[in-house]
Amino acid sequence: MTDTDKALDEFSLIRRYFHRDAHFAGPGVELGPGDDAAILSPPAGQQLVMTQDTCLADRHFPADMDASDVGYRCLAVNLSDLAAMGGEPLWFLLSLTLPAVDEAWLEGFSKGLFALADEASIALVGGDITRGPLAVSIQATASVPTGQALRRSGARVGDAICVGGVTGAGVLGLQQWQQGLRNGPAIDHFRRPQPQLALGRALRGQATACIDISDGLLSDLGHILAASGGLGARLEEAALPLGSETLAGCPVDEQRRLQLQGGDDYLLLFTQSAHLPVPPGCYRLGTVEEQAGLRLADSDGRITTLQASGWQHF
Amino acid sequence: MTDTDKALDEFSLIRRYFHRDAHFAGPGVELGPGDDAAILSPPAGQQLVMTQDTCLADRHFPADMDASDVGYRCLAVNLSDLAAMGGEPLWFLLSLTLPAVDEAWLEGFSKGLFALADEASIALVGGDITRGPLAVSIQATASVPTGQALRRSGARVGDAICVGGVTGAGVLGLQQWQQGLRNGPAIDHFRRPQPQLALGRALRGQATACIDISDGLLSDLGHILAASGGLGARLEEAALPLGSETLAGCPVDEQRRLQLQGGDDYLLLFTQSAHLPVPPGCYRLGTVEEQAGLRLADSDGRITTLQASGWQHF
Repeated sequence: MTDTDKALDEFSLIRRYFHRDAHFAGPGVELGPGDDAAILSPPAGQQLVMTQDTCLADRHFPADMDASDVGYRCLAVNLSDLAAMGGEPLWFLLSLTLPAVDEAWLEGFSKGLFALADEASIALVGGDITRGPLAVSIQATASVPTGQALRRSGARVGDAICVGGVTGAGVLGLQQWQQGLRNGPAIDHFRRPQPQLALGRALRGQATACIDISDGLLSDLGHILAASGGLGARLEEAALPLGSETLAGCPVDEQRRLQLQGGDDYLLLFTQSAHLPVPPGCYRLGTVEEQAGLRLADSDGRITTLQASGWQHF
Repeated sequence: MTDTDKALDEFSLIRRYFHRDAHFAGPGVELGPGDDAAILSPPAGQQLVMTQDTCLADRHFPADMDASDVGYRCLAVNLSDLAAMGGEPLWFLLSLTLPAVDEAWLEGFSKGLFALADEASIALVGGDITRGPLAVSIQATASVPTGQALRRSGARVGDAICVGGVTGAGVLGLQQWQQGLRNGPAIDHFRRPQPQLALGRALRGQATACIDISDGLLSDLGHILAASGGLGARLEEAALPLGSETLAGCPVDEQRRLQLQGGDDYLLLFTQSAHLPVPPGCYRLGTVEEQAGLRLADSDGRITTLQASGWQHF
């Protein structure tokens, strides 16, 4: 075996870039990477929530994005799904497909990946590396107290519709990236979305339905309303926050469009009793109604019908 | 949205080809696909074993292989890892990357996938579909009684080295496929490897180490010996079974080479006390020795040193 062959060896690559003992010392990890499978002890009295998402170069992230941002972002997308269920992160597995061995890229990728893994206290427990077009497939598992996982399907007529921050930054960041910008708050959000794990946990027993916004606010609100028995919603135009740091500089109409239709936000969208206080950092945008469809009311009460169109990943 | 757009919609594709209620009614599945994550109840008093493997077209399977065989094979590869841990299959997630929507292909793929899922009693609980070069990434989870998972690391000097069948058919099947053959026992094995789940369960508390053969017998034996503290092995040439159905027609020397070096077998390779009976259908090939390295003894006791070379997936 030559040195070049060695550099291509899956086992060596995994050891060199992904075997960091500190990162495997997660809760219930009896055996991490290196065997046919990981051995894990699920926490007693809890259920598990599991998600898996594949991110492809030039489809879900720019191929020339910093490797550390690719690592961070691909894990963030999966953690956001766990947040939407109210989960406490436990373990993840990583299938990495690489066109060739690029050690600088791998070093950066693992750095960004583990930066978020450490923040979120989630342990890498297995996976594989194969050769092919650049793709990152992550499966992530969290725990929730039995019966307390948040779902899309529990919204009720009269519930308040709330969102975990100012939407629109994900798509704006992508647009700015495509225009050649490499700095700024929207670009930061695009490169390193922040999964709202603490908010998701706080919403257990409070939110009646929850989803993370990946396709766009209206599109994902449509998923909640459809899953909750075909309900509708009225959003208040005046409730959409303006002048946030990330959307600053955009005309008001564009800010509204980005907030309603933009995707890739990875903020939580949820419904809760209208009598409950809105959690800190969140906005109440409207109300669940019995009449199907999405309606936007302006400050004079005039109603516009909206389409639940968003970004189709496929 | 045009009809063409509808055909590309991830949600519709998942509903059409992967939402079959019977397949989600697995043990502990509280919520299957359709939300941000699945909700699952792990069996009490058990540990979990988790694996993830990505199979790429023209790297791990021929792109022109029958879609139903692709579905079967990609799940089989992952179940074989669970078998090597002694696991009882529970749940899997599927990330499918497709160059374009080909409904006939999807129909076949899901048919083959669910044929094995049903055989193995494993439930599809989530995943995603994205557009890109054909790839199948599966994460699979099994349960094992706490403390009873099989590992690579427990082989002891004097243990018998056993294998769950006649190795070599995987690589022979690939060779025959490349020569244009589409029928025969080796081709069948290549298209639809049979994960040895029942053998894995039977080996709990009996095998001291276990691995599934994907890189080749010698290479995977090398993994066991390395993980067990740097031990060695002596294999008996006369113990290699000849004239099996799958290798019939090959010269004797070629049969030996295929058995020792071929990959993609997905049979279990394990060590156990030399005093225990060899399980039905299995072969005892040799003995674990203190001296590092792999040695092959012919019927006259002459020793040849072997290289632990096998197929490198990357």
